[in-house]
Amino acid sequence: MERSLRDRIIALAEEARRAQRALSAKSHGERMAGIEAIGDKLREKWPQVVAANELDMEAGRALGLSEALLDRLYLDRERIEAIAGASEVLLHQPDPVGQVVEGSTLEEGMGLLKKTVPMGVLGMIYEARPNVTVDAVALALKSGNGILLRGGKEALNSNRALVALMKEALTEVDLDPGLIGFIDDTTHDSSNILMGLKGHVDVLIPRGSGRLISAVTQNATVPTIETGVGNCHLYVDAKADVDMAAAIFENGKTQRPGVCNALETLLIHREVAGDFFPKLREIAEAHGVVIHGDSATLAEFPQAKPVTEEDFANEFLDYAIAVKVVDGLDEAVEHIGRYSSGHSEVIVTEDIAAAEEFTQRVDAAVVYVNASSRFTDGGCFGYGMEMGISTQKLHVRGPFGAQHLVTTKYIVTGRGQIRS
Amino acid sequence: MERSLRDRIIALAEEARRAQRALSAKSHGERMAGIEAIGDKLREKWPQVVAANELDMEAGRALGLSEALLDRLYLDRERIEAIAGASEVLLHQPDPVGQVVEGSTLEEGMGLLKKTVPMGVLGMIYEARPNVTVDAVALALKSGNGILLRGGKEALNSNRALVALMKEALTEVDLDPGLIGFIDDTTHDSSNILMGLKGHVDVLIPRGSGRLISAVTQNATVPTIETGVGNCHLYVDAKADVDMAAAIFENGKTQRPGVCNALETLLIHREVAGDFFPKLREIAEAHGVVIHGDSATLAEFPQAKPVTEEDFANEFLDYAIAVKVVDGLDEAVEHIGRYSSGHSEVIVTEDIAAAEEFTQRVDAAVVYVNASSRFTDGGCFGYGMEMGISTQKLHVRGPFGAQHLVTTKYIVTGRGQIRS
Repeated sequence: MERSLRDRIIALAEEARRAQRALSAKSHGERMAGIEAIGDKLREKWPQVVAANELDMEAGRALGLSEALLDRLYLDRERIEAIAGASEVLLHQPDPVGQVVEGSTLEEGMGLLKKTVPMGVLGMIYEARPNVTVDAVALALKSGNGILLRGGKEALNSNRALVALMKEALTEVDLDPGLIGFIDDTTHDSSNILMGLKGHVDVLIPRGSGRLISAVTQNATVPTIETGVGNCHLYVDAKADVDMAAAIFENGKTQRPGVCNALETLLIHREVAGDFFPKLREIAEAHGVVIHGDSATLAEFPQAKPVTEEDFANEFLDYAIAVKVVDGLDEAVEHIGRYSSGHSEVIVTEDIAAAEEFTQRVDAAVVYVNASSRFTDGGCFGYGMEMGISTQKLHVRGPFGAQHLVTTKYIVTGRGQIRS
Repeated sequence: MERSLRDRIIALAEEARRAQRALSAKSHGERMAGIEAIGDKLREKWPQVVAANELDMEAGRALGLSEALLDRLYLDRERIEAIAGASEVLLHQPDPVGQVVEGSTLEEGMGLLKKTVPMGVLGMIYEARPNVTVDAVALALKSGNGILLRGGKEALNSNRALVALMKEALTEVDLDPGLIGFIDDTTHDSSNILMGLKGHVDVLIPRGSGRLISAVTQNATVPTIETGVGNCHLYVDAKADVDMAAAIFENGKTQRPGVCNALETLLIHREVAGDFFPKLREIAEAHGVVIHGDSATLAEFPQAKPVTEEDFANEFLDYAIAVKVVDGLDEAVEHIGRYSSGHSEVIVTEDIAAAEEFTQRVDAAVVYVNASSRFTDGGCFGYGMEMGISTQKLHVRGPFGAQHLVTTKYIVTGRGQIRS
């Protein structure tokens, strides 16, 4: 009798749990040997991954995936080398597990230690990019966790090949390949089952579109780290250096418009609008950025689209920008407070008081003064590699890596103390 | 036209949000003046609270509430004084807000600071005890947050009176009374609405029965800190000091059997069962503890009930204990792994290797060696006062107070850096 999908996924979770418990008895060095073995294996057997990836690419072309999506999916020897190299950055970082983060002697004389310990079993739901498959496993090994992977259907063959090689690598260095649970069903059913596996999965990380993330928020019973939706604003203050503002705008909007730390709305102080508009025009024309403007912007750009509530509320993830002229920092902060997804927000100003007020009042994971929102990234922040960018306030906020995939355990040691 | 309950609760959340934003511009001292003013007000106007509490007590007696529940509900001058005094402990603790917890200079030269900031608006769903109303507000002030309170129907009049006095106190020290949103509807509707206010409420804390907590886990879209269910075990090791084990058992089971850090299951190593059973008999008889035993226990206590799967899986919260004789630490750890709610777990042993292995392998918020599980408490752990005891792994685990009701914000300051 065929087991149900739910039973199969639970079996993977239980296997990951058992393997994770065994992993807890291993040293950091033994876990790192797993990451090294994975890198070696990918370098050795890259043609297997490329062959599997070709199947995904063919299927993707047949389905009419966009060039951008096909590019995210594509793997060759060089990209596989880059994936292997990226995870090896983790080798040289300190062990996030077993750190004593608090300690005291309690009133009654017991010793109290608070130590970091692995979460247990992570669950990850993600979309097209196959490099996430390897990144997630490397971060799980670094943090001592097991992991269930539920990737997107576009990358199914690539992911399957990558997981097979990673399991082979783990086995060779005496780590249990059951640490990696690969869910090869890519229907909504498997995501929904994974979201509901409270007790089997300790934390769920959705990484992908706003739609995926909101489905998880609505349905998950497993505690979740919400990631990625970035409705990011740039406020050009009255005292801005407009050349700097233009460079930061161009970088934030056009370097990679499809990512979560790209800019989506430009708020321009009325006093500098006259100076800034010519630069906006130049950048928009050079990159084909469509302007969705308020009335003050439309007066200058008659061919622009009138901006809507929808434009302010959502990410374009494309060569398009919402533009609004504001009367001051108050109006900018209020606009951001209404529409921001709490990801990355930027002020460009030479005025120290404005910078201070903006950073204090804007409620987001990262607030920038005179720098590009594109820096919100685990690599740029020095975490080596990221599992995602949290836009929630619970547990971790902003880019997070292995050091955030742990929880704590109190250990209290006494000589028979009881509570009076 | 009467507004819907949902609209009313959203209006309270928005008021708390506005008030919280204003609070962010105030100093720690100004927030602490709020806690002091609340203490003074409760001491001055305690008869108003007692009068309201009498209504709740009458209603409770009419409803046939148990003596234990009535006792938890009851307030008199002395108890109100104790409530005021408890929150004043927070005055002398450091400000959890505005702490720089990380800082670096990034590759491109920008300065990065990671600072603690308030969560924003907390939501709390809780049951009978009116002291929680004041504790929660004091912790919210300490951590710079607004709060929505949805207490139990048994304490409605007491809570309303306490909130009215607290709002009066805040107004007198120029803090916005809108910081406290009191939901005076105690139907399931109001809880369900609160659980779904994602975007309006930043974190939800249910504090009460297992049923409440599991309803929240199933239905909440707001990120949640799960609290309180404690299916706690005591393992009496082969090398235990049996007198110490008996004292820790008696304290854990009988001092306050209705609380989450009370013991629910006793696992006894076969080698010490002969020595420990007489002590178990003595304690059970002295306190009227009903034994639910496995076959080895029943052989010694023929009048005991046979233990069921249900007994192992759930809290008794009463003078009852599940008892199992095990062959060793492995079996104890496996039993705990299967049934524990991850709250507090205890080993009594003189064997340092057994202690080490137990603390390493048992996955719980607090693991005790030779001390009572009853110490799992924010006060005992030196946090002054607790909002609850987290049994989840995300964000905080174990007793948590004001210092855990914050999140972080990265502030990145540059001179026009863009990403290449």
